[in-house]
Amino acid sequence: MKGKRICIVGGVAGGASCAARARRLDERAEIIIFERGPFVSFANCGLPYYVGDVIRREEHLLVATPEMFRQRFNIEVRLHSEVVGIDREGRRILVRDHQTGRDYHEAYDALVLAPGASPVRPPIEGLDLPGVFFVRTIPDSRAIRRMIDERNAGSAVVVGGGYIGLEMTENLVRRGLQVTVLEMQRQLMPACDPEMVWPLQEVLAEKGVDVRLGAQVERIKEAGSEGLTVRLRSGESVRAPLVIVAVGVRPEVQLARDAGLTVGQLGGIRVDDKMQTSDPAIWAVGDAVEVVHVVTGRQTLLPLAGPANRQGRIAADVICGRDVRFRGVQGTAVVGLFDHVLTITGPSEKTLKALGLWNDPYDCEKIYLHPGHHASYYPGAETIAMKLVFSRKDGKILGFQAVGKKGAVRRTDVIAMAMQKGGTVFDLEEAELCYAPQFGSAKDPVNLAGMIAANVVRGDVDVVHAEDMDRVPQDVLVLDVREPFEFRRGHIPGAVHIPLGALRQRMDELPRDREIWAYCYVGQRSYVAARALRQYGYRAKNLSGGYRSYTTWRKALGKASGVFEGQGR
Amino acid sequence: MKGKRICIVGGVAGGASCAARARRLDERAEIIIFERGPFVSFANCGLPYYVGDVIRREEHLLVATPEMFRQRFNIEVRLHSEVVGIDREGRRILVRDHQTGRDYHEAYDALVLAPGASPVRPPIEGLDLPGVFFVRTIPDSRAIRRMIDERNAGSAVVVGGGYIGLEMTENLVRRGLQVTVLEMQRQLMPACDPEMVWPLQEVLAEKGVDVRLGAQVERIKEAGSEGLTVRLRSGESVRAPLVIVAVGVRPEVQLARDAGLTVGQLGGIRVDDKMQTSDPAIWAVGDAVEVVHVVTGRQTLLPLAGPANRQGRIAADVICGRDVRFRGVQGTAVVGLFDHVLTITGPSEKTLKALGLWNDPYDCEKIYLHPGHHASYYPGAETIAMKLVFSRKDGKILGFQAVGKKGAVRRTDVIAMAMQKGGTVFDLEEAELCYAPQFGSAKDPVNLAGMIAANVVRGDVDVVHAEDMDRVPQDVLVLDVREPFEFRRGHIPGAVHIPLGALRQRMDELPRDREIWAYCYVGQRSYVAARALRQYGYRAKNLSGGYRSYTTWRKALGKASGVFEGQGR
Repeated sequence: MKGKRICIVGGVAGGASCAARARRLDERAEIIIFERGPFVSFANCGLPYYVGDVIRREEHLLVATPEMFRQRFNIEVRLHSEVVGIDREGRRILVRDHQTGRDYHEAYDALVLAPGASPVRPPIEGLDLPGVFFVRTIPDSRAIRRMIDERNAGSAVVVGGGYIGLEMTENLVRRGLQVTVLEMQRQLMPACDPEMVWPLQEVLAEKGVDVRLGAQVERIKEAGSEGLTVRLRSGESVRAPLVIVAVGVRPEVQLARDAGLTVGQLGGIRVDDKMQTSDPAIWAVGDAVEVVHVVTGRQTLLPLAGPANRQGRIAADVICGRDVRFRGVQGTAVVGLFDHVLTITGPSEKTLKALGLWNDPYDCEKIYLHPGHHASYYPGAETIAMKLVFSRKDGKILGFQAVGKKGAVRRTDVIAMAMQKGGTVFDLEEAELCYAPQFGSAKDPVNLAGMIAANVVRGDVDVVHAEDMDRVPQDVLVLDVREPFEFRRGHIPGAVHIPLGALRQRMDELPRDREIWAYCYVGQRSYVAARALRQYGYRAKNLSGGYRSYTTWRKALGKASGVFEGQGR
Repeated sequence: MKGKRICIVGGVAGGASCAARARRLDERAEIIIFERGPFVSFANCGLPYYVGDVIRREEHLLVATPEMFRQRFNIEVRLHSEVVGIDREGRRILVRDHQTGRDYHEAYDALVLAPGASPVRPPIEGLDLPGVFFVRTIPDSRAIRRMIDERNAGSAVVVGGGYIGLEMTENLVRRGLQVTVLEMQRQLMPACDPEMVWPLQEVLAEKGVDVRLGAQVERIKEAGSEGLTVRLRSGESVRAPLVIVAVGVRPEVQLARDAGLTVGQLGGIRVDDKMQTSDPAIWAVGDAVEVVHVVTGRQTLLPLAGPANRQGRIAADVICGRDVRFRGVQGTAVVGLFDHVLTITGPSEKTLKALGLWNDPYDCEKIYLHPGHHASYYPGAETIAMKLVFSRKDGKILGFQAVGKKGAVRRTDVIAMAMQKGGTVFDLEEAELCYAPQFGSAKDPVNLAGMIAANVVRGDVDVVHAEDMDRVPQDVLVLDVREPFEFRRGHIPGAVHIPLGALRQRMDELPRDREIWAYCYVGQRSYVAARALRQYGYRAKNLSGGYRSYTTWRKALGKASGVFEGQGR
């Protein structure tokens, strides 16, 4: 008895996972992967590191080969084979063999679209000039390597300051190039909140990278022996022999659109939670699809390998008759930049506000903290700057971001898991995590985040934020409770100074008719102060994240004026 | 209006947390900490590293001082003050001031017992000889340091191979000492399963540490200029000037027992989920109490700083009139040993079996896997050996252990959080965690553990284990599906060899009337083989963890003969 024929368009993350899973579930199925490019299942997340020579050999990027698919899974892989049309009525696809130039039809019982996403081509003149590269394929990276190795490119312009832009920047610096980053928006890593991204900008400055925000590229021109000139709308220009364009990716939907499948407003193929498209015989997975965000409830694009792999598995399960569902995404992501790491799970504050979800339905609040990645008494503790967004109504965790040298990924993963299970700040408070002094703290950063947030949800303390310090109302007194030497080094303008140790004795100096906003360096001592003040009848609030969050915010604001407009709470 | 008086016995983790929390909740309370020793709130988890000179200065171990408690929290700390009696009727304690020798009474409204645990004194002669040390206090560590720094101790015997024993071993080796570890049981780290502990034993061997299992110490004698002789019941003896005894801790319950408070069968103070003892005016927290294990449902002792801190907070909350509960413990723990880390959360297989919970109510199964801590194509990936225990009934996660150089803590914390939220293997399968090639894999080790276990729960594959290979039934055929070069290097005796790539062609060589146990190196290829065989009508199972788990098991077994008896499934 012959099984069903499953045709899969695209053989990288989602497509390859789908094919292998389908085989494990159904030995009798005929499974064919059509891959337009010269490789199947290659490690596209590794491309920047191949450019940086961290990954030294191209073979290392080849996760699997057609031969392996054939031998291990009895799956046929056809390389250089582009699917150019779908005859939904006839359940067949039109395939173009780029090696022979031949077009032919292939019938399917189930069709899976996993074409991925292609780099956005911004409206810039000169994108096709030699020396201008996108980073999507192994040949792309090979060509960039050749520019460095053979043509001795000494400098580069990276257009775009998101994930790929920063990873490419790190790797080009690693290869000795002088790099200029041009980001159109007024912050790097637009998926995250600006104050969490700021430390990365400091890292780039230390490495001698020239970062220009709000930089709109107008055109790229040839500049003779100096290679290329990148001209900005501001009139400035930057010269370099090498220009990397990494301004995001866009779902590959031409094939789906031509076939009349529903494409969503964000430009991704629409699928249900079984990864099924508007045609019940066609599934779609990976970077090409829109998925539901579990926190915002909205459609979203999340072109990452993890969800792609899981979606591929789920499509295979459904095709093989199982009743499974994709749960949606929460947007967990990480970017490394030299010795720093920036992570996010759940939507950013920016996103929640942009979608109009901050106040309703969630009644959001946020807290900042700066714990060490392990016990402070064990040498080598590195600070993690953390931001937790949660609902004041019930303590539900809505989003988390972290940045630091060590330990950020671990805490993000723990909080991502808590969110997946509908967890609250009270769950974080009571989390029982690994502790030995070189690995964490008796109160882990995750616990601390939970405790601080739980204090807010329980009404034990109200918080204000760095941005509120720019518009302190007349009837508010700002109180610095740090030690004198800290106050002298710098403080918030207009702050009254009473160290925590003297607060109880000197409380009478404080006015009873004004609200008091207390702060210390990271928000812990001022929390104690705010609690004491409240109990003595004062209206006191705590500056979340303390002077440290305040200074970060100021710096981010100074460099990126205007970013925070319209984000008032 | 004067507030209530809260007296706290013991000022380290639980006591100090309780005091600080109580102050934040109640400014009017009178809060007094009675601490028998010379320090309050010191970092006892750091003591081994102070011996190892990783933590260089004693001051670094002092998390807080009496002065800080007074200034910051208006909390009185009385050092050298031992509480020697409780007059429950009169609600007062009898305090002995060890500096003046004076005894006095102090009244309380609420009494919190946080006396900690003391090192177990095993029934060995000679424990009081000079050169024999326990590791509980700063003065203990100071004395050990002096033995090394001033008396040039060149070797040491560590009695006990648990957390403190191993941490001390690492730090003594770091100081250049030749160390012998004597462990009474037939494995190190008895809280964990033997096959998960085995890699640590290899680490110790590499470092030249002489580890003797099943070693029962009979007596310690003076041996003139050579210091001490440790005599074993086997007749062997070991000489060293320094002997560290670290065979566990025992709750300090004398005070509670004398006061007639209920002490549990495990020897800890009994408390309810509000940390209240059998006297409603007395609370107890930290290493001295028995707590409920959330997985086993049994009382347990878990003398760790994390739970102690959280219990202290909860006692303070309850004393201050709040309705909060301690959720119980799941037993998350970690030990570092040179470049290796061993972690656990939830009960071990051993524990579940010893408590009679393995088959009923949980219908437990376990899986092993050996993923890289990040993408294999990015250089530097280190293998994590992982073991997940779960219920076959509903996929509920029951326990997890991991050992490896990197990434074990992170995955353990994620799974600990999943367990806390009642998570299943299906949740792990769908977890959305941080991925970039230097930080993880598109299918993170957590996802892989979930996927492998979910395959078992869904009935897609049955697993057998390394220990089953010692008693392969007559009607079972063991099938090695690795490549020829792997098979030649070593294989399970009697195994038939057909590489996965040739399996579909050569399937007819396999008998249809025998069950087939397939294996490869880590269990992935043989899973594919088992799936294929099943679909072609064979009864096939997969060796979980593959040849790698098998060889680990054999090695652990060879060194620790008899450990696994009575653990048949």
